[in-house]
Order: sequence, then C-alpha cells, then structure tokens
Amino acid sequence: MSAATAKIVTAAVLVIGNEILSGRTKDKNLGYIAEQLTELGIQVLEARVVADIEDEIVAAVNALRAKYDYVFTTGGIGPTHDDITADCVAKAFGLPIGPNPKAVAMMEAHYQRTGADFNEARRRMSRTPEGATLVENPISTAPGFRVENVYVMAGIPQIAQAMFQSLKHELIGGDPMLSVAITAYIGEGTLAPGLGQIQANHPDVDIGSYPFHRDGTYGATLVCRSSDTGALQQVGDAVRALIRELGAEPLEKDMGSDDD
Amino acid sequence: MSAATAKIVTAAVLVIGNEILSGRTKDKNLGYIAEQLTELGIQVLEARVVADIEDEIVAAVNALRAKYDYVFTTGGIGPTHDDITADCVAKAFGLPIGPNPKAVAMMEAHYQRTGADFNEARRRMSRTPEGATLVENPISTAPGFRVENVYVMAGIPQIAQAMFQSLKHELIGGDPMLSVAITAYIGEGTLAPGLGQIQANHPDVDIGSYPFHRDGTYGATLVCRSSDTGALQQVGDAVRALIRELGAEPLEKDMGSDDD
Repeated sequence: MSAATAKIVTAAVLVIGNEILSGRTKDKNLGYIAEQLTELGIQVLEARVVADIEDEIVAAVNALRAKYDYVFTTGGIGPTHDDITADCVAKAFGLPIGPNPKAVAMMEAHYQRTGADFNEARRRMSRTPEGATLVENPISTAPGFRVENVYVMAGIPQIAQAMFQSLKHELIGGDPMLSVAITAYIGEGTLAPGLGQIQANHPDVDIGSYPFHRDGTYGATLVCRSSDTGALQQVGDAVRALIRELGAEPLEKDMGSDDD
Repeated sequence: MSAATAKIVTAAVLVIGNEILSGRTKDKNLGYIAEQLTELGIQVLEARVVADIEDEIVAAVNALRAKYDYVFTTGGIGPTHDDITADCVAKAFGLPIGPNPKAVAMMEAHYQRTGADFNEARRRMSRTPEGATLVENPISTAPGFRVENVYVMAGIPQIAQAMFQSLKHELIGGDPMLSVAITAYIGEGTLAPGLGQIQANHPDVDIGSYPFHRDGTYGATLVCRSSDTGALQQVGDAVRALIRELGAEPLEKDMGSDDD
C-alpha cells in the first residue's frame, strides 16, 4: 500500500465549558479521545475549547463539521442553565430540538429506580435535535447523541469515556496510522540537521522529535508515523543509522514527554 | 463598581503540535496558562490545538489575534524540522524572520558554557519575526518572543511555565474575576430549576454547576464568578438560600471535578 492511495479519515474535538478556560477544571477528554481515535485510524487534526456561549459553540460546530469527517464534543449536556450544547448543536444544523422519546423512556425508568424526581431540569437532558441518534451512557443514563458527523458527549471524563466506548463501533477508520518510536541520548540540536534531511526525503512519513531531560540525562524520542509500512520502515532505518553516525545507540522505546 | 463599567481583558491559548492531537502527549499548558491569566484578571475565552501545518497555524494565529486582547502559543520553537511556529507567526504578521541579535548573543554564551556546538539547527531557535521582543527562558536559554499581542512560548510544560513567569509582568489585566464556590450534597437536577432562576435574575454573574460523585455521596459545586463584588455577594446569598430551601446545608468549598 502506498501513501498515495491511503485512506485518510479526520476528526476534530470540541471541548465546551467555562471551567476549562478558567483553569478550574483541567481537560482530560481531548487526550483520551485523541488516543482512541488514533488507534481506530482516525486522525485528530484540530481541537478547540469554547465557553458556554451560544454563538461561539454554534460557530465552532459549523466550522469543524464542514472541515473534518467527524466532530466529537464534550461538555454542556447536564441539567443546569449553563448546559446549552444540545440547543447549540440543533441551531448549528438548523434543526428543531425536543424530547427524544427513546431518551425519555430510558430516563423515566432510571429515575423510577433511583426515586429522584424526573423534573423539568432532568427532562432537559432527554432533548436532542430532531432525528438525532442516541449515544448510550452506561454510567448515569442521560444519553449523548449524534447528528450527522457530530457526536455529542458529556464533560465528566468517566462519562465521556463510557460514551465513547458506546459509540466507537459506529466509526469508520482510515488506514491505521502506524508508528515507530526511537530514542537517542543525543541533544535535539545535534540530531536536527540529519533528521530534517530524512524528513525532506520522506514527506509521506511524519517525524516528530520530542526532547526529554531526566535523571541527569537528556535526549530525544523520534516518533515516526505513517500508514505506509514500507516507508515507515525505511525512515526508521534511516533514523537508526543517523543516531549511530552521531556515536550513540538507537533505543526502540518512547521516553514520553517531559513533565509526564 | 458595576458590571457595566467593568474592564474586560480577554485572551486565547493556541497549542501547537501533532503530539497533542495524536494523544501521545497530554497537554498541560492550557490549564496552567488559564489559571495564571484568571488570577491576573484576564479571561481566556477560547483555546485551539492545531497540527504542525503552516496554513493551520497561520490561520489560527490570525483568527485569534484579531479577536482577543492576548494570544499565547505553546509548542514548535525547538531546533528540529517540525518546529515551525516562529516562521508561521512571522507569516501571520507579514513580517520577515531572521536571527534576533539578542537571542543569538544569549545562546552563543549558553553553548559556550555547555560545550555543545551552536550549529545551524540550534541557531534556528534564535530566529524571530523582525521587531519581536524576547521572552526569557531561564531553563534552557532559547527564548520565546512577543509580536504585538501574540506571545510565543515553548511546549515543554516546565519551560512554558518558566517563560510565562518571565513575561507576566508585561500583561495588563482587567478587573479581577472574583469567585465564590458553594457545595451542596444535592443532585444537580434538583438544584437546576432554582439555580436557573438565580442566573436569569443576575446575568452579570456567571454561575457554573459542577457535579461530583465521591465516596458514595453526590452533589454539585456551584461556582459563581463576577468582577462585581456586590452582585457576587447577592448571588452567593441566593444560592445558599436555595440550598437550605432544598433541605441541605451550603458548604463554603469547592469539591473540584470528578476524576480529579
């Protein structure tokens, strides 16, 4: 398989919530979703974080759904006044919003079991844009949903992750992105000239250089990524040869990122 | 001081790097910068993560610098071929890029001390758009820089944080955003109707509701934010009254987020 015929499937992640932008809550959903999508052969090419402001959410949903194969949103689908994601997604698609009968039935049963009142506020969580399909929430029942290529999930990481697991069988991935990680105990600035040359010779392989300083040593992990096995192998060999040329031993491992 | 005369200063964060979008590296810079800016009275209203692709970086820099008072970028200023942020920022501003004499002098002295070769690749890290001012890097010398309202910082969290500390005295904040956090051991869906009413009565205070489930108990922390002390106090009192009305005791604490 050559890179020219590779099937590329792309995605964006849209994180919604003032609490992420104020720094109160540290986002954990982008990292999880990105990792999962990468495994499925879907490349996340952009992420955005926007506040709980209707115009901003609508504009971001429309910009991203036009540009990428999939969009995954997190946050803003709870019962309180600041949970406006469902309404914004409906508005972005120009669809009416109302109670989703399947969601109402699931939530009615849930609140009957728990004894809590299925009040107006909780009923808000059963509303979806017309024609949306549901994303199951095995943790707390109130579902996410999908409209065309946009998946809407909860913000609480545990629930977002469970929802992602519920929906991932629906996703159609591209050719899986393969990767090779090679570590050298050599400064990035020493590796850079040769590495740039390898990248220039192999534009179909993405070579990332991630420096680390740890326990008094330093170096860089070179992560080579491609859906083309042959090209990946060639680049891996070239990187190993470069490291040996610079007097060090290439190690087949990823040192992770500094501050990990 | 009333909300009508409040001085609002805004910012966006632009995280640059394939490694964040593949999930290999979990971003830690947004949370840090957001927290710091909030303390300085600067509201982060948007964040984006883009890949190491020139057109994407240039477009994001231009979109964000036109819309917000400040833009903070992280990532892509190292010595390797995938470090293209400085060139992209120059392009976004339509400025030539070249060696910054002050940066060259600092780095020359640094590499003389360490004994490493100040080669072509490392010299790339001394390039800035013409007229940029430098942001000091007390960790590894190679500086960040500022062009107009755009601050360019490293991606490694430890260095990004040190650079932020170097530059923060230059920032002019707005009225500080004050906040009150009140926790209730009551389901969000039970709080929601009364809370929505309080928010409707006080549009100048931002009320966020953050549910938690912990140690077999559950509830929500209600975070009220405003630069108007009087309005904030009124809303805090209304929230406490609501919680008591629902049969619980308001607690003056923030339970953080689930998964913290």
